[in-house]
Formats: sequence, structure tokens, C-alpha cells
Amino acid sequence: MKKINLLIGVHNHQPVGNFLGVFEEAYLKAYKPFIEILNRHPSVKWTLHCTGVLWDYLKENHLEYLRMVKDMVERGQLELLTGGYYEPILAVLPDRDKIGQLKKMNEFLKSEFGVTPRGMWVAERIWEPHLSKVLSDFGIEYVLLDDYHFISVGINEEELTGYYITEEQGKMLKIFPISQKLRYYIPWRPVKEGISYLLNSADNSGNKCLVLADDGEKFGLWPETYKLIYTNGYLEEFLNEIEKNSNYITTLKFNEVLDRFPAKGRVYLPTSSYFEMTQWALPRTSQEELEEVLVDIEKLPTKEKIRKFLHGSFWRNFLVKYPESNNMHKKMLYVSDKIEKVSGLAGKRLSKKKPLIDNNLVLQALDYLYQGQCNCAYWHGVFGGLYLPHLRNAIYQKLIFAESLIDKPEKPKINILDFDFDGRNEIIVETKNQNLYISPHSGGSIFEWDIKNKKLNILNVLTRRKEAYHTKMIKLIELRRKNKEVSASGEELGLWLIKDENLDKYLCYDWYRRTSLLDHFLHPDTKYNDFVRCQYGEQGDFVLGEYQFKKDKDRLNLSREGIVWVKEEAVPVRIEKSIKLLEKTGIIVSYKIFTSLEKKVNLIFAPEMNFSFSCFSQQDIFEKNTKLWIKEDDGFNIKVEIEFSEEILLWTFPIETVSLSESGFEKTYQGLSVTPLSYFDIIKGKPYEFTIKIEIDEK
Amino acid sequence: MKKINLLIGVHNHQPVGNFLGVFEEAYLKAYKPFIEILNRHPSVKWTLHCTGVLWDYLKENHLEYLRMVKDMVERGQLELLTGGYYEPILAVLPDRDKIGQLKKMNEFLKSEFGVTPRGMWVAERIWEPHLSKVLSDFGIEYVLLDDYHFISVGINEEELTGYYITEEQGKMLKIFPISQKLRYYIPWRPVKEGISYLLNSADNSGNKCLVLADDGEKFGLWPETYKLIYTNGYLEEFLNEIEKNSNYITTLKFNEVLDRFPAKGRVYLPTSSYFEMTQWALPRTSQEELEEVLVDIEKLPTKEKIRKFLHGSFWRNFLVKYPESNNMHKKMLYVSDKIEKVSGLAGKRLSKKKPLIDNNLVLQALDYLYQGQCNCAYWHGVFGGLYLPHLRNAIYQKLIFAESLIDKPEKPKINILDFDFDGRNEIIVETKNQNLYISPHSGGSIFEWDIKNKKLNILNVLTRRKEAYHTKMIKLIELRRKNKEVSASGEELGLWLIKDENLDKYLCYDWYRRTSLLDHFLHPDTKYNDFVRCQYGEQGDFVLGEYQFKKDKDRLNLSREGIVWVKEEAVPVRIEKSIKLLEKTGIIVSYKIFTSLEKKVNLIFAPEMNFSFSCFSQQDIFEKNTKLWIKEDDGFNIKVEIEFSEEILLWTFPIETVSLSESGFEKTYQGLSVTPLSYFDIIKGKPYEFTIKIEIDEK
Repeated sequence: MKKINLLIGVHNHQPVGNFLGVFEEAYLKAYKPFIEILNRHPSVKWTLHCTGVLWDYLKENHLEYLRMVKDMVERGQLELLTGGYYEPILAVLPDRDKIGQLKKMNEFLKSEFGVTPRGMWVAERIWEPHLSKVLSDFGIEYVLLDDYHFISVGINEEELTGYYITEEQGKMLKIFPISQKLRYYIPWRPVKEGISYLLNSADNSGNKCLVLADDGEKFGLWPETYKLIYTNGYLEEFLNEIEKNSNYITTLKFNEVLDRFPAKGRVYLPTSSYFEMTQWALPRTSQEELEEVLVDIEKLPTKEKIRKFLHGSFWRNFLVKYPESNNMHKKMLYVSDKIEKVSGLAGKRLSKKKPLIDNNLVLQALDYLYQGQCNCAYWHGVFGGLYLPHLRNAIYQKLIFAESLIDKPEKPKINILDFDFDGRNEIIVETKNQNLYISPHSGGSIFEWDIKNKKLNILNVLTRRKEAYHTKMIKLIELRRKNKEVSASGEELGLWLIKDENLDKYLCYDWYRRTSLLDHFLHPDTKYNDFVRCQYGEQGDFVLGEYQFKKDKDRLNLSREGIVWVKEEAVPVRIEKSIKLLEKTGIIVSYKIFTSLEKKVNLIFAPEMNFSFSCFSQQDIFEKNTKLWIKEDDGFNIKVEIEFSEEILLWTFPIETVSLSESGFEKTYQGLSVTPLSYFDIIKGKPYEFTIKIEIDEK
Repeated sequence: MKKINLLIGVHNHQPVGNFLGVFEEAYLKAYKPFIEILNRHPSVKWTLHCTGVLWDYLKENHLEYLRMVKDMVERGQLELLTGGYYEPILAVLPDRDKIGQLKKMNEFLKSEFGVTPRGMWVAERIWEPHLSKVLSDFGIEYVLLDDYHFISVGINEEELTGYYITEEQGKMLKIFPISQKLRYYIPWRPVKEGISYLLNSADNSGNKCLVLADDGEKFGLWPETYKLIYTNGYLEEFLNEIEKNSNYITTLKFNEVLDRFPAKGRVYLPTSSYFEMTQWALPRTSQEELEEVLVDIEKLPTKEKIRKFLHGSFWRNFLVKYPESNNMHKKMLYVSDKIEKVSGLAGKRLSKKKPLIDNNLVLQALDYLYQGQCNCAYWHGVFGGLYLPHLRNAIYQKLIFAESLIDKPEKPKINILDFDFDGRNEIIVETKNQNLYISPHSGGSIFEWDIKNKKLNILNVLTRRKEAYHTKMIKLIELRRKNKEVSASGEELGLWLIKDENLDKYLCYDWYRRTSLLDHFLHPDTKYNDFVRCQYGEQGDFVLGEYQFKKDKDRLNLSREGIVWVKEEAVPVRIEKSIKLLEKTGIIVSYKIFTSLEKKVNLIFAPEMNFSFSCFSQQDIFEKNTKLWIKEDDGFNIKVEIEFSEEILLWTFPIETVSLSESGFEKTYQGLSVTPLSYFDIIKGKPYEFTIKIEIDEK
């Protein structure tokens, strides 16, 4: 008799820092109804992965979920998977943190459910071959990955049943390929089609296994799925059919398969993820090219064959594509290294009085570090991710928290190191109250400013960049304007919902990263709106230019010899920018601007700052003359006060990005640009001086 | 003024185990004339990597080469690169061996030339991201990789100048992309075209760098290149032109670029090698498909765009494609682990008498292990590689040598472990004189048999497999037969030379791996030639079947309940195969064959053995009745004597593969198949007994 074994795997996750309302909605619409129905079908075996973020939420708010899980585990219906507790991309963590994240998850599952999982869920199925050893050494026996991983090394889809074996340095790991076909059938095609597909896949061996594994949110939270799966009864019907066909279809847990059936073969999988992820990780122009290629080959008879060998980039290149993602990642490495250093001292004593570092502090710091490794804010595909300020803020919050616990400098420290791995040194100044990250070679700018008591990087602004999907969005909007009622295809109406009919008006692209103390020189004709749209002629070469750095007692001195174009003449200009950290939270920036020209010239100097406030109002947007600017942020509960040494024209405007999220195209407020414009004459021997004092206080 | 910096890198290598004549020819035709000409152009800076295999040869035979290198290094003209001493694929070694290989090279270069290289040559440019950390920790600052690696993550060719920065776990490494364009220009296009390309690439920045890096053998050893490069004076002319254009073209060493110019950017490179390598690593059918795809897109206007996103598999999958490669790799890991274990004991003593293990022995063993890691025999593209028995033999020789030094079992040891990582246990029996590797689940066969005093795995036979290029070869041969003078394109006449007009006649494909003690049951109609071609109906299910294993004192007992088809009836048959190791080198295999059938049936039992002799003569090929078979092998200096318990019909024939090498398609002798055919009647209660005694002696 022909038989097929079905392995059902579900992965539930919510990002660190996500709104609690979303957790609750996901629980009510997806996690809860799903498990309740499975609970009523005790003969259907399945496997569950919840991330630690979610376990924490469920334990606090829905103990009934944990009870149900425990029951199902105990009666043998349910297998649990481990994973990095806060769902990090394991491949990009230090090995010690990979292990730490896994340990925490295993300890949780042991204490709550009495189990030690044999398998692991790989976040976003981001695979690198060196993981086999780390995971195997930790005791993990198997992982689940997309069949795309296997197809990309030339294995045919039909062969992708059961599990394969891989190794690294002789350490073995087993890998189950997830069937893309099954993911497409269930729940999107009628139940009988899914069941037919299973029955048609059956064979006489008795040990053929197919893996259906997917995000739990797809079962109820995604648009339209609640109606389909619960109101219309898809899931109930599907499980009933499975039970009716129990002579042919057997549901198994993954660990049962390991014990019963031999491996299908050996395999070595490349650096990869699912196909779309490899597209998104490409630089934008290449991403567009790959999309064109996919369209081009669509008409070819050989498209399926070509498709097999196409691939994009791999995950780590998000760190290249988005400097903001790299900033978080390198901060994470930096904090991890700090903890590693002090943890070596934990328990040791210099004198009899007290240990060098309290071990509990180290453990707490590690947990915050792990939280700050949650993957969602580090990348961007078609769901918000990196574009969502609350997710990025959560990452910085956790990392700054971790750092603050184990590093409380009594007096200011200056670290000079290549923080962002661009081959040039950055400068990090750390005091009791604040950290300042300065890039001498990028305009002598500040790119991170941690307000320690708030656990806040106030410069966490995302630069406005062209995304591959912008072209598509513009076309859709134009089409809609023409036709009023757009006659777009289902796909276009689905994911590509446009929340605001005038979104295209907000598309501006920055030619520099939106950090702070960017030393512009403007042309007299430059208008406020040109500057807002980042479409104007920069007259100086300071914004992207390299500054020299020198420490002088309590000041950081940056200087650059550059030029400013004035009426087609290149005027030699020297900027001296001196930064002094205030005792509390704040800085004083003193500018001195020189020229060696013996003729008087008129300049407009505009040192730009960008702050990642939690929200903005229309009052924040203006051009006006002032000597003092104050912004109160209710979300972060801070007050930023900027005082200039003279009355200047102040331009402020919001940085807003246009990006894709689950619910379509949307505009997101990333922060506020604050730029004083100072008009002055300058001549050799008479430098111009200008001072900015920024204070950040509790509101 | 526009300028371009040219970085010239040369990589010289000969495989461990290659014929000395080839070393010498390569020296005289390539390495020597090349360096002599460079020596006459002291203003042209360049960078050299020789593998340790080659350094050893040169030091012993051509001290003048080392002297010239030293002079050039000392006058600042030449930079040296490090690398794994015996040119292993670093990614697939245990980390400790990666370091050991690099250390040995650095010690050599320090003692011979007084330098510690900052850069490393990556064997076959096989990259995996985890390498950054290992290399960086060791102190390596940079590597060279193909621009294809960069293009495959979406970076445009024009951007691929200078060097990029990558990191793993915060450990930094710099990577220079090698220009494919330059490799195509030099030396294949006229000098002036190469120079024009360089001049056209010049820009005003002063820090633009292009990398020309290639195999040294291409400069003189490859067909036709000696004439082109030396007789016709290509190299001399090229260097003269470089010197003439010294205002525009500056040759630099890689380390100078690191010190003078900033990085181009950050990058994370995937598991990859050059494009062709990714094709070859695919399973054969997928490899053919990818070739078809390349042909299909050739006509498309968008082919360049598609090409960028196409890729094949990655190197490690050669270990899946060729079980023989996996066999060597897992033996290498096995021996490495053994050495690692005893090295922990080095210097320690159990009693006062002597140390547990002599540290010198460990060091010697490590060096043999490293030699056994040389990459060439582990894979196959268009150059022989895995298909060359002398290269595979060299690998086994070194590994067995290493093992013998540190493991001398006083009495037989049995290890049961999953040696080959297929999820099933193999059995390894180790005695003072021999190692026997047995796979119960693959027909209870022996797949490795190490003759320790000869450092020889006598079962090192390569199975006859279909290769992607066979179809092309058949077409070429048929074309030639039709036309006599084939009107093939240049490419076809070049690499695709066919050494033997009847090569297609030798194309046979085996449906099982050519190991030993493969228990066939033949049909009475099966002819010798059918068996030779592996085209016959197997009547039993024992060859690929699973045997049970039991140890019984000094015997290994394997047994299987299977069936044999006799006149459309499935006869239940049980085989008991008992292997006894002889004190010296040899085994006695005792077969007992049972049936539960109460009716007499006639069977032809044919337990096949395959031996990897160094050569064969026509006398080795026959079908004849005998009780004793003796083969003397002058190459290995051994005598193999096989005695059967009764006179049987013996079939012997050579296993010959047809594969590609530098000089075209060729036939290679892999070993001899030796199969006794025993005709007997069997009935319930009257088992048939048959014994094979194999002795291997010094000749």
C-alpha cells in the first residue's frame, strides 16, 4: 500500500520591540485558534517553534497556551523546536552568543515542558555551512531549511523528501528540506487539492516524508487568512481529511523520522536563504536587474530550468546595503566583546572588598545583548523590518542597556577603532551619561549618540534611499490617477496596497547618510524645499570629506582643509570643529571657519543635525530665525534644547521614508532634520566662529 | 594625469604525487623563464605564491630559483604570499589543520626569505565566509578572489578595483578582486590591446588598482603558451610596454596598496569559487542542464544580465558527487582526529620509562596528514584530478603514513562509526599490518583496505560514472567518423582533443561502487562482456543490500536475508559472510549460502573484488577456470594471491574510465575487477560453502 508521511512544522514569532497589540492580535487570530484546533485532533502530530520573545509574552499573558503545549507534548502529539531565544540570525553572531541564545531557549523549554529539543528552527532559514559544527557541538541533531537551498546545489525537487546529512569538520547535522509546493497548496488551494497532492506523492517504501513548515502568522494573522482558515473552516477540514486518509497519510514528528528512517543522502548547503531573501539582499540596481531577468525569462520555454540556477546575494550583505543595519550589527559585536572581556573578570577580586564585576550583572547584560540580536530590525524585504523605527529603537535600547550594566566609565573614555569595518578609524567617546560615535572620514560627523539613562540612540535616523519597488509603486500610482479605479492584477492589489495616494510625492533620495554635524555650504539660491528634497547644489566638499582628528584635553578637535565654490571660484576653506561633552547629557560644538583668500567672500554655512524623535507635529516643520530651539518628545520623555551662538535661520523638516510593509506601501517618520543657516563674510585672518550647544534632558 | 595601478600576482603549483617529470617540465617551460624575465625588469613589481609542494621541489632541485626570489624580495620588487603549505581546500579542513598548514608555510618563507607574508592565496579561490575569522586570527591581512565572487552578490564589474573589507565575528579580512577581463587579455590578446585596456582604465584618483592574477602554468606550460610568451616574446614586450608607460601605469605589490589606499567598501562573499568550479560541483544531470541554460541564453539580448545571476553548486558537493572523494576526505578527518587525540598525550608519561607518544612522531604524522590534504585529487573539473590514480594514491599514501606513525595497534581494534557521514555505521578493523573498512549497509562490502607497510589502499578504484562531457565527446567522435577531418571550432580542437578514436567504446557506467566482496548472483545467460560493461541482469538483491553485522572473536560476521530470482521465482537466500584477518596482510572470507526453499535450485554466485593495481597487461584479462590467481604489481612492489576453496570460473577485466585532462579526453586504468563464478545447487538444509583467501605480500 502506498503511504506518505507528513511532517507539520509551525514557526511563531514576534519581533523584540513590536507593539503589544500586535502580539495580542497574532495570538487571538493565529496562535490560539491554530493550537486549539490541533488540540481537538490528537492523532495529528506536529512540531512547534515559538521564539523566546513570544514564549515570554505567552507566559505572562496566556498561560493557557503553555498548558495546552505541555499537554500535547506529554501525550506525544507535539514536538518542540529550539532556536536562538530572541530569534537572531545565528550566522552573524559571535559563536559564544550563538550558544548563549540556544542555551537560554533550551533551559526555558526544559523548565516549562520538561523537554530538550533535538531540532532547531533556523531564523529566516539563513544558512551558512560553518553552522553545522556549532549546532552539532551544542547537541542539535537537525534543522529545517527550504528546498530552495537544496535545489541551488542541483538536487531535483522530487528527491527532496525525508532528511539529508551534512557535516562541518566532522560534526554531523541533519537537514529536512521544507517543501515549497506544500507551502503553496496549504492553505491557499482547496483542501482536496492539498490532500490529492499528498496522496499522489505516496509510495511503497513507507518511509517517504514531506515537510510542511511555515510561519504561524500565515494561519490567521495575514490578510484574509483568518476568514479562510477558521471562519470557513479550512484547517478543521484539512485535519479531518488527514484523519480520514490515515491509511495513506501518517503525520509524524521530526524526531520520529530520525529514529525510523535512514537519511536520503549527504549534502552541503551554500550560504543561502529562501530565494526572495537572496533578491532583497542585493544592491538595489542589481535587485532591479534580477527582477527584470525573472520577467524576461517568464516567456521562455526553458524558464523553469533557468530559474533553478538563478540566485541573488546572501543575508550578510544587508549590512553593506544599509549602513544603519551595519551600525546596529557592529554595535552588537562591540557590546558583545565588552561583555566577553568583563565576564572573564566575573568572580575575580582585585582587593578583598568586592569582586571586579558582579556576575549577575554580566548575566543580565548578556540577556539584553541577546534581545538586541533579534533579526527583524536588521534587514528589509517586503515587510517593514529595518524601516520601522520602533524596531530599531528596541535594538539600540537593549544594546545600550547591556552596555550600561557592565561599563560605567567614571571619567570619559576615548576609543579609536574601526568600528564599522570600513578600513578607517572611528572615535567613540564614552562617559557616564552618554556615548558619542564620530566618523572623522565622513565629514567629521556624529553617527550614534547614546543617551544612557534613556537607553536611546537619538541619531537612529534611516536615510532615504531608492528601493527597487519604488518604480513599481510610481507606476501603480500613476495608473490609478489615470483610471481612478485601477485595473491591476490580484497580486498588485494584495501586497502592493498604497495607503496614501500621494506617496510618490514623498520620494526623496539622500546623497549622504542622515547623521549629525554635517557641514554644508549652501548656494544663496538654495530654497528650503530644495534642501528638504535633498536636491540642491552643495557648494563645499565637507559633508563627505575627511577630517583630521586630534584630542585636546576635554575636547575632540576635528579639522579639514576643503573648498567652497563661490561664483565659480574654489575658495580654500578650513573648518575647525571642536566637540566638548557636557557633564550631563549634551555637547558643545564650536566651529571656527578660516580662509586663506585675501578677498572677502560671503558664505552660507549650514551644519545639519538629524534626530530620531518618536513623532513629530506640524509645528516641528519651519524655516525661521531663532537663537534657541527646543523639542519635547513625549514618546521618549526627553527634551532637546539647542542654543546657537547667534540668531540664525533655522530649517527643520521630517525625514520620511516610503517603504513596503505587510499592509502595503507606507510613509514612515524616521526623524527630524535640524539645520541652522549662518550667513557671513570671511577673509584671510578673520575666521568666523559659531557655536552650537545641544542639551538633552529628562522631560 | 590619469593613472592606473597594476597588481601582478602569480600562483605556481604542482599536486602532491604528481610525476617529477611534470614538475621539471613546468619549471623549465614556465616558472624559470617567467622569473628570469621579471628579474631583468626590476622596475616591475609583482607578487608570487608557490605552494609548499613546489617550494620543496625547487629547494631540492633548483636553488637558483630560490636565490632569484630572495634577491627580488630584498630589493623590494617581489612580495610573497602564504597559503596552506600543501595547497589544501582550507574550508574543508579542521581549523587546527588550517592553521598548521599556514604555519608551516610561514615558517618556510621566514627561514628562506626572511619574510612574513601579509596576504594569502586561496586554493582554487574556494571561499566560505567563516574563513575570515580563522585567517584574521592567524594574522593574515588579505586574500585574492575572483571578481565572480563579488559579481554574484550584485556588485558591478566596474566597481571591482582595489580591495574590499569583510569580517566574521568582528575579525577583519581584506579581499582583492581578480579581474577576469585582464586574465582574458593577458597573454591571450596582443600586448597593445592589454596595454590599451589598462590605459583606458586609468583615472584621476591615482589610487585605482586592477589585479592580474593567474596560474603560473599558464605562462609557458599550457599548450602553445611557451611559444607565445617566450619564443614570440609576449612577456618581454608586455613588460617593456609597462615600463614605457610608467607615467600612467604603476606596478605595485598588494601590501603597498593596503598601506597607501583606502578600501573600496565592505562586502560579504558567499560560498563560491570561479564560475566553472560551481558548474563542475553540480550533480551530472544538473551540470548538463546548466550547460544547456548557458547555450539557451546565448541568443538572448539580455544574456549578460542573466549570466550575472547564474551559479552552480559549491566545492564541498564534490564530496557528494564522488563517494571516492568523500572517502579520502573522511579518511583525512579520521586521521586528523586520531593525531589530535594522541597529540594531547605528547610529552606526558604513564610510567617513568617512556613518554606515551614521541612528540617528533606527532609532528611527522601531522606533516603527512597535511600532504594528504592537497586538493587536486579531491575533485574533478576539466583537468584529471580525482580521475588520476597516482594522485589519489598519493593522498592515501600520506594519510596511511600519518596514521601508521601514531597508531600501531598491538592487537586488532574494531571501530564502529559513521565514517562516511551517510547516517549508517561502518566498521573499521585496524591491525598492525592492515586496515579494513567495511560497509554493512552497502552489500557488506569492503571499501578501503590499507596495506600499511606499503602505505597503500589497494581498493582505491574509481567507479565508472557518466560525466557531463561524455555526450559532447560522443558527438565529436561521431562527427569525426563521418567527416574524417572534423570541421570543429577552435575550442573543440583545443581542450577537447580526443586521444583515442575509439574512446566511446570504453564508456561503461557502473550501477554500484567498485568496492570489494560484492555478492552478485548472475543469470546463466550473462556473458563475460555483459559483466565487463556492467550491462546484465542482476538476479540477487545483495550488492546494494543491507547486511547485519556481528563480531565473533577473531571474525567479522556479516549476514543478509535476501532473494535471488531464478526463472521468475524469488528464491529466499541467506548469505553468511565471515571475514577473518590474517596475521600478516590478508583475509580469509568464508561464505555460507542458505535457502529455505525445499526445492533444489541452481545459482551462480559471483563475489566481485576490485583492486587498484598500478598497471595491467593483457594477461590480466581473461575468463578461465582456476583455483589460484596471482597478480604481481611492479609499481607497488606487491604480490596479490587469491586462493579459492574450489576451482571456479574466474572473470577479470580492467576498470577504465574516460575523462578529461589538460591534454584532452583520455582513458585511465583504475584497477582490476576479479570475480570468481561459482555454479552450485542449493536446497533447504544444505548450505553451499565457499572460501576466498587473499594474501598480499611484498613482491
